[in-house]
Amino acid sequence: MFETYDNEIRQFADGAKRSSMSGPRLGIIGGGQLARMTAMSALQMGCDVLVLERNNYSPAANLATHSIVGNWDDPEALVKLASQVDVVTLENEFVDANALAAIEEAGCPLYPTSRSIGIVQDKFIQKSELAKAGVVVPRFAAVKNKEEIRELGARFGWPLVLKTRRNGYDGKGNATIRNVDEIESGWQKLGAGTRELFAEEWCPFVKELAVIVTRSVTGETVVYPVVETVQHDHICHRVLVPAPVDETVAQRATDLALQAVIAVGGIGSFGVELFLKDGNELVLNELAPRVHNSGHYTIEACRCSQFENHVRAVLGWPLGSPEMVMPAAAMVNLIGTSKGPGRPLGIEKALAVPGAHVHIYGKVMSGAGRKMGHITSIGRTLDEARTQAELAAREIRFGN
Amino acid sequence: MFETYDNEIRQFADGAKRSSMSGPRLGIIGGGQLARMTAMSALQMGCDVLVLERNNYSPAANLATHSIVGNWDDPEALVKLASQVDVVTLENEFVDANALAAIEEAGCPLYPTSRSIGIVQDKFIQKSELAKAGVVVPRFAAVKNKEEIRELGARFGWPLVLKTRRNGYDGKGNATIRNVDEIESGWQKLGAGTRELFAEEWCPFVKELAVIVTRSVTGETVVYPVVETVQHDHICHRVLVPAPVDETVAQRATDLALQAVIAVGGIGSFGVELFLKDGNELVLNELAPRVHNSGHYTIEACRCSQFENHVRAVLGWPLGSPEMVMPAAAMVNLIGTSKGPGRPLGIEKALAVPGAHVHIYGKVMSGAGRKMGHITSIGRTLDEARTQAELAAREIRFGN
Repeated sequence: MFETYDNEIRQFADGAKRSSMSGPRLGIIGGGQLARMTAMSALQMGCDVLVLERNNYSPAANLATHSIVGNWDDPEALVKLASQVDVVTLENEFVDANALAAIEEAGCPLYPTSRSIGIVQDKFIQKSELAKAGVVVPRFAAVKNKEEIRELGARFGWPLVLKTRRNGYDGKGNATIRNVDEIESGWQKLGAGTRELFAEEWCPFVKELAVIVTRSVTGETVVYPVVETVQHDHICHRVLVPAPVDETVAQRATDLALQAVIAVGGIGSFGVELFLKDGNELVLNELAPRVHNSGHYTIEACRCSQFENHVRAVLGWPLGSPEMVMPAAAMVNLIGTSKGPGRPLGIEKALAVPGAHVHIYGKVMSGAGRKMGHITSIGRTLDEARTQAELAAREIRFGN
Repeated sequence: MFETYDNEIRQFADGAKRSSMSGPRLGIIGGGQLARMTAMSALQMGCDVLVLERNNYSPAANLATHSIVGNWDDPEALVKLASQVDVVTLENEFVDANALAAIEEAGCPLYPTSRSIGIVQDKFIQKSELAKAGVVVPRFAAVKNKEEIRELGARFGWPLVLKTRRNGYDGKGNATIRNVDEIESGWQKLGAGTRELFAEEWCPFVKELAVIVTRSVTGETVVYPVVETVQHDHICHRVLVPAPVDETVAQRATDLALQAVIAVGGIGSFGVELFLKDGNELVLNELAPRVHNSGHYTIEACRCSQFENHVRAVLGWPLGSPEMVMPAAAMVNLIGTSKGPGRPLGIEKALAVPGAHVHIYGKVMSGAGRKMGHITSIGRTLDEARTQAELAAREIRFGN
């Protein structure tokens, strides 16, 4: 009765011809929520998605045509992924840049490139490159021992922020040293000399801002609205769009963000974090060479999301507009409180809040401080959007 | 270095505990583009999705936690699906209502119910129920033989539209009989007495309109804007939002659509097709008991899409707003032209049209008249949206 294609599908869909039946194949290193949301955009545009992750139960595994189970830093697993896709991208900056280079050496495009990742993943090199390009950053210097920390404290003043050069996130890998007496505890906290460190001047801020920049293989760029981010315990808790700042501040933040992404040769969507200091002074805090928590609001609030634009950018496709569809948006993260099952509870109550969009990442396990989902609300005013997002977020917890 | 949950994930994620780790589990009968877009919304809200389809390469298979390969009409396959999920829904109205009842008998909720599907899938019964509820439909009557067709032509006037009671779609299952001499060819076209038929008066229309209505298990309803649909060769080609009609016409279309969905006890998103006749007279053409091609625009154009609201409705969750985020939207289908590989070509050209959103369904095979994807554009005016959507759609074809 219906025209079916079953025979042709079976004939073509098995084996090597598969790749000639689909759109471009996108490989993603990492299978977390950022990969998941990127995969949704890629699938919508007809791409196939392959994911490399350490287990088969990642948030993105569901959306992948095929998951490769392996270690991010294993060049063999990376090359295996590369051999099955047209382009590789990644959802975090913690994959060793030298391992990543194996993908490019195997002839597969990787965006951002291993060179960009190498610059960004070592925060000392990142800051050095940004400073060289004229981007305003807090004063910083590499430190090798406690004596150098003492000297730098004397030079920059106290408190001083001690940081690991690599693998810091959500406040992990940072220690604030308020005075000479705290050098020892900071030194111990960050590995007592086992990890490469640098130190940065204390940067009191009025607000934390962030900007998503997407830059294509073709050089085309778009910059999303400047947002205010609010952290609790070093974890992004809330994003307010547009940031309630002067137009001139927003314009300078936009310019700085774009300059920074170009300085590191970035391709794809990048998150750029800035500090707004007293007197409307702006300094760049750090770059994330990937889609970013501060840009989740773009799914509902913008014409084209950071995720869709990331996919377009790494494939060399024209970028979509970052223009907002409503005047304001707010995003609130749903953070786990303790280790246990990841089952979301209270969604029906959250959805009863008008305008609340509920995103649950499908993580099997919850954990203290773990990002389990988020709420976005768009509205006519920032107050309206924020109130809705917060009311809805309050209703959801994870457990059994 | 990072906190991982690998051991717990392996322990919990295998076996029966899986279902206690995720949100609700949604079973979808059918794995086409409607299931795919529904699955995206369900996943976003933390649901697990299981799909029953005749092969493993369906557009929705990628998004499903698990696919069951089987026949839609096979009660055993249906019960197997039901045993693994919290609620079952479907993406087409062609699954036999008696087979569907097996799901309900097994104690699993099915929405829309087998009773609603039974009413809607037999167009003669559908029209009878709608007429009984006071919904204006074209005059119609069951016909068993050529003599009855002749009599009905004399009563309703020529042309007369002969239709199969079941399994008609995209113009398949319809024959227009212009006069007595064409009775024989119409009769032959529709099976020469092997299929149940009815006949309907010819309904010359000025415009074809459609409305998506979502009705929840809880009785809550939302009605989306009235749209104009433009068919080519009986296949939906273009959707214009809002329909360029008088406010009073739009209000009456809204009322009729809601009345019709309630009349058949509909739960979930329903597509309601109407004819606008000369003199602004409205008649209901037919109902689809599922998300509908005329509502694809809601993904980008509305606060909450027909797909998300369908998921919310069948789970008994509060519905989202159908309000548009921009004043106008247009959707153009991407239709296959011949049998061959389903690879999309020209996406980069389509995306160069500002504001165009490209949706590719990931079908392995293209075919003449096959729906392979769609373009949506939202804009400040209908002209702007339509021009963008049409320009972009022109750039895409499927093949190698």
